[in-house]
Amino acid sequence: MVKLKGFQKLTLADEALQSWFDALQNAKLKVAIVSLQDALACVLAEDVIAQDYLPRFDKSAVDGYAIKSANSLGASQFKPATLELTENQEIRDRQAKQVWTGNPIPEGADAAVMLENTEKQNRELKVWCQLAPGDNVSSRGEDVKKGDRVAKVGTRLTPYHIGLAAALGYIELKVFKKPKIAIIATGNELAEVGTPLSGNLIYDSNKIMISAMCRELGAEIADFGIAKDNVDEIADKIKKALETQDAIITTGGTSVGGLDLVPDAVNKLGKPGVIVHGVALRPGMPTALAVLEGKPVLILSGNPVAAVIGFEAFGRPVVCRMLGMKMTESRPMLKAFLAKKIVSALGRKTYVRVRVTIDNDQFFAEPISAKGSGAISTMTQSNGFVIVPENREGMSEGEQVIVNLFSGLESER
Amino acid sequence: MVKLKGFQKLTLADEALQSWFDALQNAKLKVAIVSLQDALACVLAEDVIAQDYLPRFDKSAVDGYAIKSANSLGASQFKPATLELTENQEIRDRQAKQVWTGNPIPEGADAAVMLENTEKQNRELKVWCQLAPGDNVSSRGEDVKKGDRVAKVGTRLTPYHIGLAAALGYIELKVFKKPKIAIIATGNELAEVGTPLSGNLIYDSNKIMISAMCRELGAEIADFGIAKDNVDEIADKIKKALETQDAIITTGGTSVGGLDLVPDAVNKLGKPGVIVHGVALRPGMPTALAVLEGKPVLILSGNPVAAVIGFEAFGRPVVCRMLGMKMTESRPMLKAFLAKKIVSALGRKTYVRVRVTIDNDQFFAEPISAKGSGAISTMTQSNGFVIVPENREGMSEGEQVIVNLFSGLESER
Repeated sequence: MVKLKGFQKLTLADEALQSWFDALQNAKLKVAIVSLQDALACVLAEDVIAQDYLPRFDKSAVDGYAIKSANSLGASQFKPATLELTENQEIRDRQAKQVWTGNPIPEGADAAVMLENTEKQNRELKVWCQLAPGDNVSSRGEDVKKGDRVAKVGTRLTPYHIGLAAALGYIELKVFKKPKIAIIATGNELAEVGTPLSGNLIYDSNKIMISAMCRELGAEIADFGIAKDNVDEIADKIKKALETQDAIITTGGTSVGGLDLVPDAVNKLGKPGVIVHGVALRPGMPTALAVLEGKPVLILSGNPVAAVIGFEAFGRPVVCRMLGMKMTESRPMLKAFLAKKIVSALGRKTYVRVRVTIDNDQFFAEPISAKGSGAISTMTQSNGFVIVPENREGMSEGEQVIVNLFSGLESER
Repeated sequence: MVKLKGFQKLTLADEALQSWFDALQNAKLKVAIVSLQDALACVLAEDVIAQDYLPRFDKSAVDGYAIKSANSLGASQFKPATLELTENQEIRDRQAKQVWTGNPIPEGADAAVMLENTEKQNRELKVWCQLAPGDNVSSRGEDVKKGDRVAKVGTRLTPYHIGLAAALGYIELKVFKKPKIAIIATGNELAEVGTPLSGNLIYDSNKIMISAMCRELGAEIADFGIAKDNVDEIADKIKKALETQDAIITTGGTSVGGLDLVPDAVNKLGKPGVIVHGVALRPGMPTALAVLEGKPVLILSGNPVAAVIGFEAFGRPVVCRMLGMKMTESRPMLKAFLAKKIVSALGRKTYVRVRVTIDNDQFFAEPISAKGSGAISTMTQSNGFVIVPENREGMSEGEQVIVNLFSGLESER
């Protein structure tokens, strides 16, 4: 018979994360130079400093004519100013030159008059309104000045950052290399998807699901397969993974049948080993956080939903850190009215899956309940989760709560 | 001198989209079989029907002992039931068998008693509480029944769908092929990033920015370069792109300097050509929507922010349609208090860039203003936009508005 272990004490989720981060070496992240095309969703490894002005020159913001604003003094619908049209590069007193939106404002001009406020007669232009200097002109550097910092180190690059970098003439950017993460599943009961299933075996779904969550964040994944419930086999796989990977995530083998196979395997491999084991988190209580060779080892429950929530609470922050982000990238959030009360245990940070809908510009969150935390279908039925803090015992129907969204709302076109 | 054209009439944005969709052929989307790993973020081309039960068998939801619940009748802390421990596959009357969470419930048992409610003495087990049939048992098919539809055609696959498919034994899924989209920039003033810049040239940023927006949604992009402001050159590029691509997006050459080069080029190439030209959208008014060979042609402004908003209003829905989604995938949304009033024109659907912050569980949206709609930096400074409908003339400070988020909120860890 195995020795039965309970958790003497559960660590609060925030404290657990802090202790783990404190124990992690401040690993120097590797950087890479990537083309603008490849930079989408990468994290900047250095500030982007504007190497030019935007716009590069004073340009017209309208279709019309560049003029000296002083020449329009007193002009009105009843008393137009009359100017001479020119095609020269420079305009002189009482001259005007046609410009389209985006065209440079010629030397000598300081404003642009809109087409609809003018009338052209042969080589003459009537201007029906008075302009001030700078009217309808986008001036040089109005958007960005040379030397401005337009994006900070640690920024996750959107299409707009890439567009801005292109406008400034960048062809490549310095970003952090994607972290490499090993995923190891453990459990005698597990079979790889695609293999025949017999007896009491079940398909491993954790490895592929957690891998996809890592890839969504921007990490590269290496699949180290399934280890049997055996400390040595587990330790071998972890040791192997440490040789090439930046972090390791395991599923299963923690508080299963009274055994802590993965934590034991990790502690055999070196110091500091397991930092936290047993978190005041629901689901995800048996999660353990460890450090080996300065690298994070995240030990998740074998229960699919508990693994997802353990990853959400600890994997997401550590992957963001390894990506080079300054803070953990939040999921999109919104406030919604709870459509049904939530029951939760005092003292546990509880992740409740909910389905958010929008009705008449109001958001509603319906808790998706299931008997067990193993029910993956509750994840596909929901589109977000509500976090009930440790000091709350449930939440009331109709209460406004913050929802963290993990997939889009269904909305009418 | 060029002939000057104004828009006789602007089409409402929703009507414009509807007319465009009506004119598009209901193209039969191509499907592909992909491995589960590669299915992340793909769109399902057929329903996923459960080919097995989840759980596959009755299993224990706790660490403890499988028993016949009837044998615990009347048991309490003061009057335990005493059972005989067995290691057999099947339990008989007044027997109990040790089980760990996830283990199959042996034949003959109908409940599991938690470890902490028992005491083991040699081959005997004392049970301190009374159980009902099914207590602490996850029954076969409790999560998913064989034949259940677990994901619908048109669903964008999340890590959780992939996990569920894995648990059900799927190794690959049938998804829609990614649409192939050609991007063409137009404009004599444009230079490709990476080339030397002289005189009044500016770098093209639209092609790479719109490409990135397409790729974010899941499309494949082909860069067809920059066309000069010349109808024939533009028509040649579009014709070439139609040979291999599923859709075409252009930037510039619409209502520039009184010329509609791209719409003219499109209309030269075939029917129905341009469906809508000039939309009651701000920014993005010169956007045109066209159809050639049954394929969508989206003609965006050359102004970077107007191009982004034109894509948001029309490109996003058409790409979602080509991806095989049933509806346009919404951006994450939230309701926020406007930190400053918004000025907008009656009769135009107006996209206002805002920066959303969270303070004390309240969301605030601050409009990011800029003189021109060319200021890309307003996109990198904001993280969402508020859509002011046509029937509103601005919005008030303090008003609650719906924000469509395009990047994450910055939040403390």
